Amino acid sequence: MKRNLLLTPGPTQIPADVCAALGRPIIHHRTPQFQDNIKEAIEGLQYVFQTKNEIYLLASSGTGAMEAAVCNLLSPGDKAITVEGGKFGERWTELCKAYNAEPTVIEVEWGTAVDPAKIKELLDQAPETKAVFVTLNETSTGVVSDIEAIAKIVKETSAVLVVDAVSGLGVVDCQTDKWGVDIVCSASHKGFMLPPGLAFLSVSDKAYKVIEASTNARYYWDLRKSKKAFAATDTPFTPAIGIVVALCESLKKFKAEGIDNLLANYGRLAEGTRAAARALGLSLFAKDDCISNVLTAISLPEDVDGGKLVKTMRDTYGISVAGGQGHLKGKIIRISHMGCIDEYDILTGISCLEKTLKELGYKFELGVGVAAAQKVFNA
Amino acid sequence: MKRNLLLTPGPTQIPADVCAALGRPIIHHRTPQFQDNIKEAIEGLQYVFQTKNEIYLLASSGTGAMEAAVCNLLSPGDKAITVEGGKFGERWTELCKAYNAEPTVIEVEWGTAVDPAKIKELLDQAPETKAVFVTLNETSTGVVSDIEAIAKIVKETSAVLVVDAVSGLGVVDCQTDKWGVDIVCSASHKGFMLPPGLAFLSVSDKAYKVIEASTNARYYWDLRKSKKAFAATDTPFTPAIGIVVALCESLKKFKAEGIDNLLANYGRLAEGTRAAARALGLSLFAKDDCISNVLTAISLPEDVDGGKLVKTMRDTYGISVAGGQGHLKGKIIRISHMGCIDEYDILTGISCLEKTLKELGYKFELGVGVAAAQKVFNA
Repeated sequence: MKRNLLLTPGPTQIPADVCAALGRPIIHHRTPQFQDNIKEAIEGLQYVFQTKNEIYLLASSGTGAMEAAVCNLLSPGDKAITVEGGKFGERWTELCKAYNAEPTVIEVEWGTAVDPAKIKELLDQAPETKAVFVTLNETSTGVVSDIEAIAKIVKETSAVLVVDAVSGLGVVDCQTDKWGVDIVCSASHKGFMLPPGLAFLSVSDKAYKVIEASTNARYYWDLRKSKKAFAATDTPFTPAIGIVVALCESLKKFKAEGIDNLLANYGRLAEGTRAAARALGLSLFAKDDCISNVLTAISLPEDVDGGKLVKTMRDTYGISVAGGQGHLKGKIIRISHMGCIDEYDILTGISCLEKTLKELGYKFELGVGVAAAQKVFNA
Repeated sequence: MKRNLLLTPGPTQIPADVCAALGRPIIHHRTPQFQDNIKEAIEGLQYVFQTKNEIYLLASSGTGAMEAAVCNLLSPGDKAITVEGGKFGERWTELCKAYNAEPTVIEVEWGTAVDPAKIKELLDQAPETKAVFVTLNETSTGVVSDIEAIAKIVKETSAVLVVDAVSGLGVVDCQTDKWGVDIVCSASHKGFMLPPGLAFLSVSDKAYKVIEASTNARYYWDLRKSKKAFAATDTPFTPAIGIVVALCESLKKFKAEGIDNLLANYGRLAEGTRAAARALGLSLFAKDDCISNVLTAISLPEDVDGGKLVKTMRDTYGISVAGGQGHLKGKIIRISHMGCIDEYDILTGISCLEKTLKELGYKFELGVGVAAAQKVFNA
């Protein structure tokens, strides 16, 4: 009777009724019935994206939405700015280079966030910059960027602001319209509590004008095709029907709960997890001023093998958390607060972390992590 | 208690136990557990593809696999050959043009198949041709190409043969290795009886050498990344986990039944459908020498509105068939034989077609279509 609890930053725990929707008999996509699903999905997404912009659906993982943003906005030789403070920031740079654009890379120490003033400086130096690519929540480090401050700077220029919100949307605040974010990329298998395979991006009018001018080769990612299909409540290619249908169920929960309440609740889960880590004598990887509520990256003591910790928690006890990526491999664990989980799931995860840390020889008083989190949850 | 029967050429009817697999709690993709799924899926796909080549998984619709083939094989200015005898043949040309390659288009009358000698002629004229793009089953017309004969020609040249088998694989024969097909593209929501959102392509060594030389911009579709991930039983980007898990269930059925038996059975369903159409005094759209067992395209009498026919069958009676595409809109209906259906589903579809044709004023003796199909099924 082993548990299968995902405290991983994607995929995340799927609600039972959304699982049931995924198992429903399939319907055809070129029908009024499925058009109702598209309409409902778009309206719900606009609510979570906090935008009135058009939102396009892509049958792909989150990287597909990121690639669509890059190859539709930039032409070869175009200048762009990317921020690298982790694996997903690096993806923006890789994408720009794959399309022969010229990204100026802001390198940020992992665990810290970009200083918006640095973006302003680069935009002042190169006002021909076509786009600025940033990350809402850097999944590899547990850092959240100050998108509001960045947007304030970028919107005064001709550059388009693109935010990778794949792992942040619906979990931490991203006020697309109020802040003025041109393109927000997200995907199904993080905050939206669905399997991977569906990506979405919202596109502002400012961004769309740049999209029309791009000379890059593109077909499946061509957002001009997406815009045309959007107008007809359709998708340019066969959509991920099953996930779109289930998305409608998942979005009902966002509406029922209210986005602000959801964000506050995820904040509480994160705060409890942070309190637990500290009580266990472990330090948090991300700096305090940019620590994210999406996931908590916890630095491990040198004599604890992070790989073994993650493997034992998952294979022996059925609780999945993530290890470190890149140079952080084996050195941190990452506990996600996204998806269909509550405070008891976090307590379960911390309890299992305590059990496994003990087994691996780390010294602490059993129970202090769980108790610290409980204090937060019962405050 | 309205039926929801899909006799459409994608999506197709999903077996109940595969639906149940889609509704299972999700598992994480970077785990030994999911690696077992990948391994099982690849082995099963190799059985259905009839190949020992590597097969790459993409989280996308079938067009993603087609785009991956084009953008990995061709560089701007490269010569290619495409065959247009329907909507999906046209997609090859569009993709080549999107990537600034130079396709020589063989235009074929809709309802007929390409003459392989025409491909030989063009290859002789332009031996520098990089790739030949053809369609196994042209879904818009119900025509099957003679891939064996085409492969015989192309394998004597330096060109790579790419087959769009999105809607044909597992339904009509495609002997990838025996015939010598370099790249076979397919997707989850046709013969494989799954929701859309997962595409796959098999790649020969000959094709991979060309892939390595392409200068096209690509990232998500980059098959060099796929090859590297394949070696590690992984995928370069987050896979469509749910569909991969369900694919393992669907592939069990292919193995249990045996590919040859399955193909023979689909042939019987197609033959019954054709007999029914003829008995109803309707003509088949595809020519006899290239008629496909994947779906049957039936030409409608001039005074029958094809759009209304499809809508009534679907919205009033719960039986989905497809209408015509492009210039065939309203003029044909297409009844698919793919997916989890048997002879009784075909009889149901024909019975519903008869009911609706009567309502729309077409004159015939009620029951002759069903009886003709029954004769085939009971022979």
